[in-house]
Amino acid sequence: MSSPALALAILDGRTLFTFLDLAGTFAFAISGAVAARQRGLDGFGILVIAFTVACGGGVLRDLCLGATPPPGLSDWRYLAVSLFAALVTMSSKGLVERLQHPVVLFDSLGLGLFAVTGAQKALLYGVNVEVAVLLGMVTAVGGGLARDVLLNRVPVILQREIYASAALVGASIETIGDRLGWLSGSRTWVALGACFALRYASLRYSWNLPRFAHSQTEMDPPESGQH
Amino acid sequence: MSSPALALAILDGRTLFTFLDLAGTFAFAISGAVAARQRGLDGFGILVIAFTVACGGGVLRDLCLGATPPPGLSDWRYLAVSLFAALVTMSSKGLVERLQHPVVLFDSLGLGLFAVTGAQKALLYGVNVEVAVLLGMVTAVGGGLARDVLLNRVPVILQREIYASAALVGASIETIGDRLGWLSGSRTWVALGACFALRYASLRYSWNLPRFAHSQTEMDPPESGQH
Amino acid sequence: MSSPALALAILDGRTLFTFLDLAGTFAFAISGAVAARQRGLDGFGILVIAFTVACGGGVLRDLCLGATPPPGLSDWRYLAVSLFAALVTMSSKGLVERLQHPVVLFDSLGLGLFAVTGAQKALLYGVNVEVAVLLGMVTAVGGGLARDVLLNRVPVILQREIYASAALVGASIETIGDRLGWLSGSRTWVALGACFALRYASLRYSWNLPRFAHSQTEMDPPESGQH
Repeated sequence: MSSPALALAILDGRTLFTFLDLAGTFAFAISGAVAARQRGLDGFGILVIAFTVACGGGVLRDLCLGATPPPGLSDWRYLAVSLFAALVTMSSKGLVERLQHPVVLFDSLGLGLFAVTGAQKALLYGVNVEVAVLLGMVTAVGGGLARDVLLNRVPVILQREIYASAALVGASIETIGDRLGWLSGSRTWVALGACFALRYASLRYSWNLPRFAHSQTEMDPPESGQH
Repeated sequence: MSSPALALAILDGRTLFTFLDLAGTFAFAISGAVAARQRGLDGFGILVIAFTVACGGGVLRDLCLGATPPPGLSDWRYLAVSLFAALVTMSSKGLVERLQHPVVLFDSLGLGLFAVTGAQKALLYGVNVEVAVLLGMVTAVGGGLARDVLLNRVPVILQREIYASAALVGASIETIGDRLGWLSGSRTWVALGACFALRYASLRYSWNLPRFAHSQTEMDPPESGQH
Repeated sequence: MSSPALALAILDGRTLFTFLDLAGTFAFAISGAVAARQRGLDGFGILVIAFTVACGGGVLRDLCLGATPPPGLSDWRYLAVSLFAALVTMSSKGLVERLQHPVVLFDSLGLGLFAVTGAQKALLYGVNVEVAVLLGMVTAVGGGLARDVLLNRVPVILQREIYASAALVGASIETIGDRLGWLSGSRTWVALGACFALRYASLRYSWNLPRFAHSQTEMDPPESGQH
């Protein structure tokens, strides 16, 4: 793409959205492919995990909305981007290392974008504010949750990260703004920007949410199904 | 709530149902929050697990019925109760300890209630007896399964508990009673009571279902996808 | 069944389909029951895992198609076959050992059959080629994935197996053949046979897909939600 064409694409909001959507999908897919490779999965397993991270959140949202079949499964571009990410990850350790900075950037952008567009799609289906906010967050973090469940580890985003909470902020701004009638175009960019800024700053300054773990000698928990 | 008002609530079946529903939800959410805190999750992760246990089973049932969006996501009271349970768990170890007995009690009541209401909702959607019984059980135990999957452990209820099987009994009484035309009001209380009694007695007398594990030197299993 | 009756069944495609469907379900359920018993689950847990492997993939496909309630939950034969598999597994280690060869055979046949019928059902719902292929594969391997997630291990089929990829081949032949107008009856047998042959040959000759794991000292991964 020539430089003027790129500039034009950035000026055109719809094209920019598509670009961010696919770039965020690529970043999500890379995160899945790298984690899968580290676990020793074969090439097919790497592709499955990459695709799961890229589309898992959107599929979960669509199931909760009754929007079947989920576009995450029917739009070939997501599968193609996931395949490309899996091939890049398999082909070269060095290439993934060189891509590390843009991937972190687009992962944060993707987080904001998926939270906002997830909430928007939910609102189109006539759900209430709570469902829209929850499904916006699910769209953004569901794929990462599925990745960690399949790779047999406690989801990192539940442990010590401003990640899901940043998605919650983005989805909330979009949803509440929609109900209060804020201007549609700028609202979306404010919501995306707030989520991105929160996530990116938390990475840069190593912010974390407080933890509440206690010692191993803690009382037996009153858990469902544990007594 | 004053004592006469409480007595009135207990006399009024519908109010009692709502009270049991929210008390059971609270007990389920506490079980998730305590387990999440023990795993060292941050405050947001504790809330996510609490909400998952409280609503996961109902959401899974609603997806299988095509009842979207699931009321577990759209009714603010479940989220509020889960948030309250998460805050209680984070604020004080001592408070959770003092709550241990009522929590076990309401967890058992919640198990019965969710099994019965889950089967009832399924029957409203015109499904057959098998689906109603299975989805009643899924409503009661799905959240606990999701908790253990997210916390990366084999679900406790599959290992050594009369828990899912008590839910199965409750859902079966409700469903078969519905088909045989037993009186609706008393049927529900019989089903709930049977599940509760079975679960509570199993806790008190440490009943378990038989296990069938063999030694480590067992033959290689003929598992799908393992050869 | 007498020998002429068996011959007749094999001549009648529809009866043969039903037989393969239930035999494949039994093989899948055995794989779940054996794995669950090895993990020390109680009798109820063994049944749950057996039923999950037998029906999990079909339920997941049906949720993605909006086909509710899923026939995997409403057709009593799947539950009955799963219960039978669980009882066989619990009753005798020796019996499972003697069944090992037919179980591997029917597991491979079931894999092909579920991939093909999963794709067929998706096509009936008017989805595009990509969705049909993906859901055919999901039908075949979803239950095995759910088994490993519930038993708290990385799904074996993502690690070192020609299993999901064989299902992909079967679903692709069926779906693409449908679009290109190949003769319906023979197409299904070709698709089933290709998946079965690929899977069975990979077992016999220990074929695997290449792996791409690196040493433990690998760079920190640029994963979503890990910084």
